Amino acid sequence: MKKYRLFAPGPTPVAEDTSLAMAQPMIHHRTKAFEKILEEVRGGLKWLFQTKNEVLILAASGTGAMEGAVVNTLSKGDKVLVVDGGKFGERWWKICKAYGVEADIIKVVWGEAVSVSEIESHLKKGGYKAVFVQASESSTGVYHPIEPIAALTKNTETLCVVDAISALGAVDLPMDKWGMDILITGSQKALALPPGLAMVALSDKAWAMTEKSSLPKFYFDFKREKKNIETNQTAFTPAITLILGLAQTLQKLREEGLENVFARHARLAEATRQAMKALGLKLYAKSPVNSLTAVCVPEGVDGQKITKLLEQKHKMTIAGGQDAAKGKIFRIAHLGYFDDLDMVTVIAAVELTLAELGYSFPLGSGVGAALKVLQS
Amino acid sequence: MKKYRLFAPGPTPVAEDTSLAMAQPMIHHRTKAFEKILEEVRGGLKWLFQTKNEVLILAASGTGAMEGAVVNTLSKGDKVLVVDGGKFGERWWKICKAYGVEADIIKVVWGEAVSVSEIESHLKKGGYKAVFVQASESSTGVYHPIEPIAALTKNTETLCVVDAISALGAVDLPMDKWGMDILITGSQKALALPPGLAMVALSDKAWAMTEKSSLPKFYFDFKREKKNIETNQTAFTPAITLILGLAQTLQKLREEGLENVFARHARLAEATRQAMKALGLKLYAKSPVNSLTAVCVPEGVDGQKITKLLEQKHKMTIAGGQDAAKGKIFRIAHLGYFDDLDMVTVIAAVELTLAELGYSFPLGSGVGAALKVLQS
Repeated sequence: MKKYRLFAPGPTPVAEDTSLAMAQPMIHHRTKAFEKILEEVRGGLKWLFQTKNEVLILAASGTGAMEGAVVNTLSKGDKVLVVDGGKFGERWWKICKAYGVEADIIKVVWGEAVSVSEIESHLKKGGYKAVFVQASESSTGVYHPIEPIAALTKNTETLCVVDAISALGAVDLPMDKWGMDILITGSQKALALPPGLAMVALSDKAWAMTEKSSLPKFYFDFKREKKNIETNQTAFTPAITLILGLAQTLQKLREEGLENVFARHARLAEATRQAMKALGLKLYAKSPVNSLTAVCVPEGVDGQKITKLLEQKHKMTIAGGQDAAKGKIFRIAHLGYFDDLDMVTVIAAVELTLAELGYSFPLGSGVGAALKVLQS
Repeated sequence: MKKYRLFAPGPTPVAEDTSLAMAQPMIHHRTKAFEKILEEVRGGLKWLFQTKNEVLILAASGTGAMEGAVVNTLSKGDKVLVVDGGKFGERWWKICKAYGVEADIIKVVWGEAVSVSEIESHLKKGGYKAVFVQASESSTGVYHPIEPIAALTKNTETLCVVDAISALGAVDLPMDKWGMDILITGSQKALALPPGLAMVALSDKAWAMTEKSSLPKFYFDFKREKKNIETNQTAFTPAITLILGLAQTLQKLREEGLENVFARHARLAEATRQAMKALGLKLYAKSPVNSLTAVCVPEGVDGQKITKLLEQKHKMTIAGGQDAAKGKIFRIAHLGYFDDLDMVTVIAAVELTLAELGYSFPLGSGVGAALKVLQS
């Protein structure tokens, strides 16, 4: 008997009581009962996004909200700046390209964070309608410095658009305080829900841009969504069960408190980082995000065998590397429904796997280092 | 104690065991286990769509697939023909308008089916890239004659695009046999799942059109989805729990058999229609679809009070009328997780409600008429 254990940076495990909340009898969305839930959920999302503005809820993967950020604020031929330091940075300019938006790309070496001064010198040239960036680049485990990037655009006409799909709820991203203009997240990350919901908030500046945008849109038309909020509805049939789960998970996060939620992610991440260092492994991200830890595969070990063996021997899913990092790294999630001892299980399984693949180290040294962090 | 009962034409009730299947521990989509499920599901969908071609699964409401049908096959300035006989017919030309596609609209009186000869005479003018139509127009309960419409376009260069969101799985719509080019459905209808999944299949002719289409798209890019099928994946993170539910519900439908599934919907619909007639009420749809029954509110009764009282007194949701039919009709669903005796409960509750609102008839006469149908 082996339990299935999921440690990929999204989808993450879902709490049992949240799964059961979503297994309640179906209710119709055009009822007072559902409208009350939606109202509560929107309040909870404002709290999570740390914004006074409305948070839109879309039945889509996070990418849908990324596309929405582009098509609702821009017009054909607009020039934007894209930070591309991984698979999701790439996605920004691919979406722009699909819609005829000209993207100047700041290519960041995988594993590194973008240089704020490089963004600054680009912005000085002027003419950029928006800067697109990830808070957490899940493919590399990097945290890009959102606060100073948002500060650059704050009193300008340029939007700061942040994909925080694998960051919001894991690290502090106060939307209004920092002056982000569009902030995006997805259900299957720190919110510990199944995939299928995207959430996005816009600043007043971003909402003003929607009035001028001429790119075509229908399903992801943010203005239509905003209008439907007046009647406590969504523009199209919402993913009802996921919203029931969202109501529950937001309530639990509020009980835990934002500071504690961030501290939890920081603790799990630090325990994992210390464990990996104790095993003699290098971290891949120069500026690691607390959502996940990307670890370099040691020399002489086949990286793809690590994930394969974890799956076969321990029924455990962690993430390998993608594209440029394929076979070179493995990634362990901290965001979602995880507690301290969960990290012990994943570190233990990684130790057993590395040992089996011939990597030499004192067995238990990683777990020991993690426990020291978790103890304090 | 009163149970909540849902009789709206989508979202419909979800079977308890399907809800529990979706409450299983989360699995990752990039695993062999999930890929196997996705393969089974795609096979089941081909069976349901009655097509040899692949069926794409999108994390979106049905409208997302409707938008996808437009943006993947057409280019700006293309001319199309839209059948608009209700709220969902309207949606077709609104999507077209948003993307700069010129739509000639055949306005159909609400409650009536489109005239095939009217479509034919339009098509004779030539130049139409596609005809857009609903199989079941949920806002009116009308079935549009899909077989002869598809026959008109079959050996031409015009696509026949069918929104079967509230029809597929309720009535027989053999895609390949009739020659439909794009067929769309959603999870929260005859498939008796929560909302959040859209499914769409394309004929070879429609796939050929995707090569020429120049409308912008990203999240709803069908070619990218098709490419991902090769590796048993979806282009973006799929709505995993809903797909687990889909696997289960498709298996149950296959066990029941397509003919029996259609016969079940026909029986529930006929029982309801006979019940309403026995109560002296008129059916709103001239050509009613078996997915739902739209009933005219009798003179002297406030239509909006019917749905309100059902909600308040019987904790039951049926649908009222929308837009042009607001206050004039009420709508009872037959598609989804419903059996014979479910129809008895909704007819009984409607009788009690009409009696309370002062409408005069022999109490039980509707239920009696329904039982006669169900008995045979």
